[in-house]
Amino acid sequence: MTLIQNLNWRHAVKAYDATKKVSQENIDKIVEAARLAPTSSGLQPFKVIVVENQEIKEKLVEGSLNPECMRDCSHLLVFAGWDKYTPERIDYIYDLTTSERGLPQGRFNSYTDKIKAKFGSLSDAENHNHVANQVYIALGLALAQAAELKVDTTPVGGFDKKVIDDVLKLHDLNLKSVVLMYVGYADAEKDWVGPMKKVRLPKEEFVIEIK
Amino acid sequence: MTLIQNLNWRHAVKAYDATKKVSQENIDKIVEAARLAPTSSGLQPFKVIVVENQEIKEKLVEGSLNPECMRDCSHLLVFAGWDKYTPERIDYIYDLTTSERGLPQGRFNSYTDKIKAKFGSLSDAENHNHVANQVYIALGLALAQAAELKVDTTPVGGFDKKVIDDVLKLHDLNLKSVVLMYVGYADAEKDWVGPMKKVRLPKEEFVIEIK
Repeated sequence: MTLIQNLNWRHAVKAYDATKKVSQENIDKIVEAARLAPTSSGLQPFKVIVVENQEIKEKLVEGSLNPECMRDCSHLLVFAGWDKYTPERIDYIYDLTTSERGLPQGRFNSYTDKIKAKFGSLSDAENHNHVANQVYIALGLALAQAAELKVDTTPVGGFDKKVIDDVLKLHDLNLKSVVLMYVGYADAEKDWVGPMKKVRLPKEEFVIEIK
Repeated sequence: MTLIQNLNWRHAVKAYDATKKVSQENIDKIVEAARLAPTSSGLQPFKVIVVENQEIKEKLVEGSLNPECMRDCSHLLVFAGWDKYTPERIDYIYDLTTSERGLPQGRFNSYTDKIKAKFGSLSDAENHNHVANQVYIALGLALAQAAELKVDTTPVGGFDKKVIDDVLKLHDLNLKSVVLMYVGYADAEKDWVGPMKKVRLPKEEFVIEIK
């Protein structure tokens, strides 16, 4: 199947079958797509927390607008972004990159000095907004990867971030939850959106071509 | 090829071969992946502007940090998001959705009232940040689609938004540029990043599993 076929196949599932678990192999592929996502300056300013533990999921229900999905999904993915960019974190990534590429350490110093100055001149909120944008690239690719595997998902932007961050102790990792993704297999009876037509703006309203 | 293979294949190209054009068929597929991207509440708060016209690209060079890429790429995609969510725009999308699904108009009123209230309580900047997150989902999928077609790309978050918005008169459409994407075929001689190893955080540093 092509990406376009997979995107046409998927939808945001509204109810999961709690008896069906997604295999570890498939979860690994979904996480791998997120890991391979491109990010601004290659900084990868986020982690993915995969919650399979039912007890922890129950604690997260309080922060969820769709508690049944939180309870019944096979796995919850929490995309958690750096609270902000710091010189140390930027150096960590670039030291890894130069080392993996067999380049001399410091090879990218003039570039990293520039991005350190840029992020240093922005507020913490602006830093985190920039991080969040990168997270959403990875979210899209993880959703597409799940669709390729015929695994159902729900991307969730609306939730109580304080509850999620507190339960998962994200503050201790200098992370903040950005977006959630339920992963599992739909309960076909209860997933009311499943049989409905996928609706998007028609192409002529979506694209402007300047030839 | 699978999505993971395609993501491993792609990289952010640093130089394009100005003599090689991407076919309209491939551009259409890249735009289609963006059109099919999931968005918060299905609102699709953005458009994609495809610039093939060389004269317009020359005018956009002033706003670009990598002028050669802007000049030499086959097509420039500008992902432009709503300046903010408004009740009218939300109604437009939901009227389309209910009509396409053969549901009575107003079927989702209690939901749209809620999201109108939510976005109405946020500042314009917060509205646009929320829009930008959705745009980045589409960017990721467009990059993946191009990779499936073995078309080269560069996602570009850093540019002078005022220049791009002014040249393309985005303000008249209540849009603001969010992110750019160069599309074309790499100049293998000048694209210095091409032969280099793709580097990502190792899986054990990227994912936290709670079993």
